[in-house]
Amino acid sequence: MSQSSFGNKFVVTTWGESHGKALGVVVDGCPAGLPLCEEDIQLFLDRRKPGQSRYTTTRKEGDLVEILSGVFEGKTTGTPLSLMVRNMDQRSRDYGNIAYSYRPGHADFTFDQKYGFRDYRGGGRSSGRETTGRVAAGAVAAKILGELGISFCTYTKSIGPVSIQDFHPGEISCNAFYMPDSRAAEKAGEYLEQCMKDHDSAGGVIECRINGVPAGLGDPVFGKLDALFAHALMSVGAVKAVEIGDGIQVTALNGSTDNDGFQAKDGRITKTSNHAGGIMGGISDGSEIILRAHIKPTPSISQPQQTVTKDGENLSLEIHGRHDPVIVPRAVVVVESMAAITLTDALFSNMSARLDNVRKFYGRS
Amino acid sequence: MSQSSFGNKFVVTTWGESHGKALGVVVDGCPAGLPLCEEDIQLFLDRRKPGQSRYTTTRKEGDLVEILSGVFEGKTTGTPLSLMVRNMDQRSRDYGNIAYSYRPGHADFTFDQKYGFRDYRGGGRSSGRETTGRVAAGAVAAKILGELGISFCTYTKSIGPVSIQDFHPGEISCNAFYMPDSRAAEKAGEYLEQCMKDHDSAGGVIECRINGVPAGLGDPVFGKLDALFAHALMSVGAVKAVEIGDGIQVTALNGSTDNDGFQAKDGRITKTSNHAGGIMGGISDGSEIILRAHIKPTPSISQPQQTVTKDGENLSLEIHGRHDPVIVPRAVVVVESMAAITLTDALFSNMSARLDNVRKFYGRS
Amino acid sequence: MSQSSFGNKFVVTTWGESHGKALGVVVDGCPAGLPLCEEDIQLFLDRRKPGQSRYTTTRKEGDLVEILSGVFEGKTTGTPLSLMVRNMDQRSRDYGNIAYSYRPGHADFTFDQKYGFRDYRGGGRSSGRETTGRVAAGAVAAKILGELGISFCTYTKSIGPVSIQDFHPGEISCNAFYMPDSRAAEKAGEYLEQCMKDHDSAGGVIECRINGVPAGLGDPVFGKLDALFAHALMSVGAVKAVEIGDGIQVTALNGSTDNDGFQAKDGRITKTSNHAGGIMGGISDGSEIILRAHIKPTPSISQPQQTVTKDGENLSLEIHGRHDPVIVPRAVVVVESMAAITLTDALFSNMSARLDNVRKFYGRS
Amino acid sequence: MSQSSFGNKFVVTTWGESHGKALGVVVDGCPAGLPLCEEDIQLFLDRRKPGQSRYTTTRKEGDLVEILSGVFEGKTTGTPLSLMVRNMDQRSRDYGNIAYSYRPGHADFTFDQKYGFRDYRGGGRSSGRETTGRVAAGAVAAKILGELGISFCTYTKSIGPVSIQDFHPGEISCNAFYMPDSRAAEKAGEYLEQCMKDHDSAGGVIECRINGVPAGLGDPVFGKLDALFAHALMSVGAVKAVEIGDGIQVTALNGSTDNDGFQAKDGRITKTSNHAGGIMGGISDGSEIILRAHIKPTPSISQPQQTVTKDGENLSLEIHGRHDPVIVPRAVVVVESMAAITLTDALFSNMSARLDNVRKFYGRS
Repeated sequence: MSQSSFGNKFVVTTWGESHGKALGVVVDGCPAGLPLCEEDIQLFLDRRKPGQSRYTTTRKEGDLVEILSGVFEGKTTGTPLSLMVRNMDQRSRDYGNIAYSYRPGHADFTFDQKYGFRDYRGGGRSSGRETTGRVAAGAVAAKILGELGISFCTYTKSIGPVSIQDFHPGEISCNAFYMPDSRAAEKAGEYLEQCMKDHDSAGGVIECRINGVPAGLGDPVFGKLDALFAHALMSVGAVKAVEIGDGIQVTALNGSTDNDGFQAKDGRITKTSNHAGGIMGGISDGSEIILRAHIKPTPSISQPQQTVTKDGENLSLEIHGRHDPVIVPRAVVVVESMAAITLTDALFSNMSARLDNVRKFYGRS
Repeated sequence: MSQSSFGNKFVVTTWGESHGKALGVVVDGCPAGLPLCEEDIQLFLDRRKPGQSRYTTTRKEGDLVEILSGVFEGKTTGTPLSLMVRNMDQRSRDYGNIAYSYRPGHADFTFDQKYGFRDYRGGGRSSGRETTGRVAAGAVAAKILGELGISFCTYTKSIGPVSIQDFHPGEISCNAFYMPDSRAAEKAGEYLEQCMKDHDSAGGVIECRINGVPAGLGDPVFGKLDALFAHALMSVGAVKAVEIGDGIQVTALNGSTDNDGFQAKDGRITKTSNHAGGIMGGISDGSEIILRAHIKPTPSISQPQQTVTKDGENLSLEIHGRHDPVIVPRAVVVVESMAAITLTDALFSNMSARLDNVRKFYGRS
Repeated sequence: MSQSSFGNKFVVTTWGESHGKALGVVVDGCPAGLPLCEEDIQLFLDRRKPGQSRYTTTRKEGDLVEILSGVFEGKTTGTPLSLMVRNMDQRSRDYGNIAYSYRPGHADFTFDQKYGFRDYRGGGRSSGRETTGRVAAGAVAAKILGELGISFCTYTKSIGPVSIQDFHPGEISCNAFYMPDSRAAEKAGEYLEQCMKDHDSAGGVIECRINGVPAGLGDPVFGKLDALFAHALMSVGAVKAVEIGDGIQVTALNGSTDNDGFQAKDGRITKTSNHAGGIMGGISDGSEIILRAHIKPTPSISQPQQTVTKDGENLSLEIHGRHDPVIVPRAVVVVESMAAITLTDALFSNMSARLDNVRKFYGRS
Repeated sequence: MSQSSFGNKFVVTTWGESHGKALGVVVDGCPAGLPLCEEDIQLFLDRRKPGQSRYTTTRKEGDLVEILSGVFEGKTTGTPLSLMVRNMDQRSRDYGNIAYSYRPGHADFTFDQKYGFRDYRGGGRSSGRETTGRVAAGAVAAKILGELGISFCTYTKSIGPVSIQDFHPGEISCNAFYMPDSRAAEKAGEYLEQCMKDHDSAGGVIECRINGVPAGLGDPVFGKLDALFAHALMSVGAVKAVEIGDGIQVTALNGSTDNDGFQAKDGRITKTSNHAGGIMGGISDGSEIILRAHIKPTPSISQPQQTVTKDGENLSLEIHGRHDPVIVPRAVVVVESMAAITLTDALFSNMSARLDNVRKFYGRS
């Protein structure tokens, strides 16, 4: 796996910087025969679009996706999909301090340490814009999974100190924060107003629930399904913790309260609880998969911050311009996309786990 | 990367089951010229040895490692190391219910779902014994890192509700729990006594701190250093959450309190704080790397538990035999090993990041 | 490695079909600091351009490359390069028989067998147009290698029965066949005239010589440098055999005549001959690397050929339109590109082979 | 893929040196449910055993394989197989010149260049002994393929100037050279007698024919099935050329004579010839797959040869000891093993090529 690729059988390779000509993704390993058009992908991209509320940047991204390869007569051909979004809003401007100093909380310093210099325009490759390609690929993965009866419910669980108290899936798309609890969303809005007044920013938690996953996906050791999800989610910028099922709560439990029992009814085996979040020993157990990503506060704030120039001079830096006080709502679709990509890969990788299934597949049982 | 391998340049492939003939690991990509002997590896393996306290299983594992290849005249040759531990204590016994029913909290059910049947002896491949190979490889990685001035401090941060209050590195090896706080260790012991009386078990948190890491390791997108650590740690059985730096605490902070500032002194740039845990934008920043793994309570408990047979009959299962009421102390070296393997791989992968360095390396600058 | 990617550290991912919107490549792992502009790549693409002689198709491909990402202020940033060529000449036409029958010598039948249907326009993904992305990436690789003092000399060694008799590198670019022997080129032209009169086609042999390669590249087992070259060259459509050094001639030799001796002079060790073609035991020995690819005759000929429709009806097929009677000359730059990509990857992969070098690299020796 | 691993879904990792403690292989991705015992593997290993004729080394290798993991109650479990052969005949001796000089035709020089030093005992990792692990893994692959109705016929096609004139599969196992032509075998014997008298050695050609391969395996670009075979075969030490189907003969043909036509009969489509060797556009077409590997003369000869010491002094070297005048017969099973490993991997990789098949596999069509 190269640094810009993810997956073994369903392989996603993203490219592009914040203020380059375009951003995109190559999706390799998409099976032949999937009906796919640009609208399928646009729907996902629109979910991460800025400017949808006063809490997200007003930069107009447009982000119209173009399918450049891999689709013929409305269906995928089995060869790589190339998906591209042109950068529309490349306002030429003076980057001033940012070109030669290190913004706290950003990757400016580490890029310079690694590469010797950096594309300082809008964060370059470390910008949240990079997730455009992930989301485009996620739309393809989600469509494949949909064809297999697998569905996602992803939402904001908390923003700063404001957590959801209720869970009404229908409300997720009714507020600017993708919260399944309109009242919590209202409070989150108030909290962000205060952050903005304080020239400050907030983080939050995103939860992703996946239903319809067949049992048996994932591998026992390094390819544990939860390990792959952890890799996928932690690879999203600003994520600082990943949980599966009960996550950090497990240390407050005992074996007797954390173990999920089994019950049989009408020949069907189900679990009596789901503390594990749908994955046992790294392998899906057929129940709901539950993931959480913890996202740090947006690092770009307009308060003065202590930093240095690349030449090693101390500096008080104020960052102006278009910045979200919170990126959590826009990251919801990114988390869902990474989860969908991971799961699609696991589905394909699992197909050779049993010799009887291989024989049947090739009509030689 | 295959299901039993981890890494791109420093590649670790483990094999073996709990009650098979042997367990082991192939370490590919270890550079030539590292002084290495069996004692180096044995030291690590002994840290995960059971029977060291009354809170760990009394099974005698012995676990004497043999280097089968890759070392000549006391130094690694650059070709694969094969490290093996024979299983000594394979007491033949009647597995009874366990052979045909699903233990709650274990991978029995999911293995059957994936593979159609399973090696039910001691959990087979899903046993904690599988980590033997990881720890043997981790010893090699840690030795390489040591040669580069990189050091680890890994310990138990909490067991059940008992967290460390102080941090005295010198105390880590002075108690059965590898806690840097002897008083917390005492309380943890009392808590586990109660768990054992209740026929129950506990989980806990392991923290790993890495010092001496050069800035610039890790890649900007899917190969983020923190994403690789998350993959590595979550691939350890029983881990249900992974944090980097402030981890889940970040959502309680604002940008102004979470951002790490920079300061220059005598031409050297350092950070004013380390909320990020040593990684910015997926790339190491030269400060201490801080990781945490949350481990669930040991699933094997001697209370009756509700489960089913593989033929779908309901059953009340009691598990007897040798089981740790807590696996956290023995997992400390496993977490350190996975962190060391991940970091070694990142060190090697980074070497072609800059053309000037490549030219210098080949003497063509 | 995904099906459309090649390499471990310098990873090339191509996408696009013959008659799709565009073709391109993502180059991941290009070090930061390489001066790169579109002209660097255009020069390579022009070498595979059709319409340069009466022996190559008259289709106008234009093939103007666009760098979409990874370059800032004229230098690579270390992040992925996205290179794209728009398809200009997508003449809409009736594909007639070709849409539903299987052209002999082409991949039509096998694509249908694998994917259930295919993009039949110009061969879709199996078209020679697919090599556009390889050549664009090859230009980047060749530029990196040039910075390290490594140079290529690639040419047509034979077309049909006409082989070069002399070797004058200066003549390579002076004839339509890239032959280092103008008189052989003349004869090849005559031979092709006859092929065209006969509504037939020809194959040939391409040779690639690489100078300035440091000793020590490649790995002892599956990553042998010659094995990687064999993979790379055989992955070019129409290549049916690959040779290293003396290649198939070795079986006519004995150990005493095939072995390359060594000699020392002024402290420098060189070989007394180069039957091995610069690679011993899978590792470069510092002498010239010599590779050959054998290319089959162009399968598209305007003679009637026996075939079947996809519905299983027998058919006599005549293929009309723009087709090269020989593809060998245009494949010269493709072979060079694949060799350059392979070698660049091997250069980067080798950097962690010795611990002393790793220590020196990180300033910790 | 690491340097000592091969494959994506069926992954083989070999380890071990000529005179180390043991050699072995980890086979990862073997499906659960394959009946497997040590005899299955021993049969393959015995085919590469030395001492079977006067033309192969008299070193007694024994080579008794042990299955250390991955099999339970006689069947593979889906977890990694660890297969090991102890080195029995590690005669301690004075390696004399060989320890500090470079044998012509061997990897001594290149190993020193790469790693700074080497295990000089019997060639270390570059010894033909390394193929032990490949052959053990090949036995597993061949058994899987056998369960799917896929069979191999692999034999020596020529030794030095002596080629087979007839093809009688039944005779392959009746002569020391695995030639399907006993009279040619006799002549080869005479030729080798002369070589031995001359203190010289010979090379030869191995051909591998595979029947029963389903159409559709392999991928259109870098994962072409023939490219994977080329990689696999060229990774065997001493192989200097690889051909598919008509191979190097294609350049003597024209499109009209090289193209394989198609014919339909009773609804079944077959080819009218098989110049392509069973692979079109990188994808298997359902007809016989034909591969050839060209093997150089054994480099160890007892004639004096010109070489140098590692300190750069000129030297005339005579190599004594146990050496085959030809390795071709013993390499027959190595070529077959590499072909079987490659094909098994391709079979598993292909399973997600079509969405309708994925849906059917998961019971969701």
